[in-house]
Amino acid sequence: MKSYICRNVEALAAYTPGEQPKIPGIVKLNTNENPYPPSPAVGEALKNFDWHRLRLYPDPVFKLLRDRIAAIHACTPNQVFIGNGSDEILALSTRAFVENDGSIGYFCPSYSLYPVLAEIRGAEKRPVELDEKFGWRMPEGYQADLFFITNPNAPTSLLYPKYTVQQFTAGFDGVVLIDEAYADFAPDNCMSLAIAKGNTNTLVMRTLSKSFSLAGLRFGYVVGPENLIAALYKIKDSYNMDMLAQAVAIEALHDLDGMFANVRKITDTRKRLTRILREMDWTVLDSASNFLFARPPNGNGEEAFKKLRLKNIFVRYFPGPRTGEYIRITIGTDAEVDKLVAVLKE
Amino acid sequence: MKSYICRNVEALAAYTPGEQPKIPGIVKLNTNENPYPPSPAVGEALKNFDWHRLRLYPDPVFKLLRDRIAAIHACTPNQVFIGNGSDEILALSTRAFVENDGSIGYFCPSYSLYPVLAEIRGAEKRPVELDEKFGWRMPEGYQADLFFITNPNAPTSLLYPKYTVQQFTAGFDGVVLIDEAYADFAPDNCMSLAIAKGNTNTLVMRTLSKSFSLAGLRFGYVVGPENLIAALYKIKDSYNMDMLAQAVAIEALHDLDGMFANVRKITDTRKRLTRILREMDWTVLDSASNFLFARPPNGNGEEAFKKLRLKNIFVRYFPGPRTGEYIRITIGTDAEVDKLVAVLKE
Repeated sequence: MKSYICRNVEALAAYTPGEQPKIPGIVKLNTNENPYPPSPAVGEALKNFDWHRLRLYPDPVFKLLRDRIAAIHACTPNQVFIGNGSDEILALSTRAFVENDGSIGYFCPSYSLYPVLAEIRGAEKRPVELDEKFGWRMPEGYQADLFFITNPNAPTSLLYPKYTVQQFTAGFDGVVLIDEAYADFAPDNCMSLAIAKGNTNTLVMRTLSKSFSLAGLRFGYVVGPENLIAALYKIKDSYNMDMLAQAVAIEALHDLDGMFANVRKITDTRKRLTRILREMDWTVLDSASNFLFARPPNGNGEEAFKKLRLKNIFVRYFPGPRTGEYIRITIGTDAEVDKLVAVLKE
Repeated sequence: MKSYICRNVEALAAYTPGEQPKIPGIVKLNTNENPYPPSPAVGEALKNFDWHRLRLYPDPVFKLLRDRIAAIHACTPNQVFIGNGSDEILALSTRAFVENDGSIGYFCPSYSLYPVLAEIRGAEKRPVELDEKFGWRMPEGYQADLFFITNPNAPTSLLYPKYTVQQFTAGFDGVVLIDEAYADFAPDNCMSLAIAKGNTNTLVMRTLSKSFSLAGLRFGYVVGPENLIAALYKIKDSYNMDMLAQAVAIEALHDLDGMFANVRKITDTRKRLTRILREMDWTVLDSASNFLFARPPNGNGEEAFKKLRLKNIFVRYFPGPRTGEYIRITIGTDAEVDKLVAVLKE
């Protein structure tokens, strides 16, 4: 019988998202969720939402939200595109900026979805191995049609300096999409590259999933040159952002103070956990994100992952010759982190 | 300067969704929305929603919803895929079932998004002109990798008989996706083809946008052979259905009685409006949907569309040698339909 499924899809090993276990009482430090609730304005918006309106289609071009995002970043609404989660923006980018015989680049290790997206697109993968300390390393003359950078990087938690990124984008003859999912936890970011005059190839993406505590909402956005943004609008689904998500997101984006208050709590806990782990002889990379990439003294990440899991503490483990020495720990509340430390000290 | 945008995207004339005007007091009969509100259980679900949970990722495989949909259609949850609106399912299908050098077929006229999706995919378009009465006509030996059928069709409102569809799918060596957005308004549907033993190529898609009054939510689903459904899961975005949409949709899918009560009101109004227009010498096709495809006595659809619009009554007009003689009128409330009739009688 003929297979009706595309060859690259048949061959695909699908991306595995972090587990979403439903066991009560677990300490869930495995998918970089924010331990604190979103803005109370979100709750109000839901309570007061006129649900009769759901019979109507949502605004297909989310005007209010683009205006708000443009105001936050001092750009024009035509430089802003919004996706049903950042993942949608990544997937659309592979189709807007990469031809059938094109190529997609990314660092290793980085977000493990990137190679999967390249395979779905049927594009050539051009991975770039980071240096021995997971720092920036770009081969001379490197080219690709689209290059994904997570900054701060996951799972390493490290921030590439803006100057380094800028040097790269300036000399790169392709689109660079900088995924700044964790930027609000970092001392610096690259948004100025996206809105800079003369920028032709650099997009900067943000999400409400982490710092805004809205992973359940699916809301990502990207800022960059108007022509690249317009290409994403052309190929998006007609109504990709539902009405509820639009109503909630606008409230969250008006409560930056609340968001940053949560971010400060998390970065304080991050500092504390980093210190404790280092005192226990763990290697902890200097995190600019809401998680730590930490290596136990024996360099056996899998063992640490499994032992924690037996105690109902979920962290993330990435098998591999380098990442396998580490575990990725989402910064939870102080109480959650204390539980983690107690188990590690046993 | 090198263009960073794909050639097919540059060349693309993007799909134009029906207008979503914000003028107060208009009669909006242009995008096939339901004039009645969704189930009151939807409102309750929103009021009682624990918004703190939004900090967490949603269930990536929407287990509760698949179980419910499987129960409704007497199939297994592995035969059910859910998309962020039916549009997402259509777009994913073009990537799961069509190779780079593949082809996509559809009727003319039908949902005007289909050729746009083919262009985005860079696939060959294989349109099939319907017969002079907008009835089924398939050239002998016709083939494509993926064929989209809207049934009841839009904008014609006509239902193709299940037997005819079945004969086609049985002899077709490609995937057939039957978009049944309007099936709840019709006397029959093709769901049994999707769940039939031995079915290898037929998918049937439904949406909550029309009969369930939830266009604002973005919720579509598709039922079919497990291997085709599994291919869609492989290439979907990790978390394509947000937590709020999942919470609301499950309530709606448990209130089928409420949905069908609204459907009956709409089909009663449909009958009444059909009769009135025919008495005014309009040609009205036998609608099996929540809209009419109606031809004014002078065969000038554009004129009727424009005149109605001046009176703040929005309907939809599709330019073209055949469709241009008609307008598409969404069935509104009786009061809305009375306003429409009053203007037409002037």
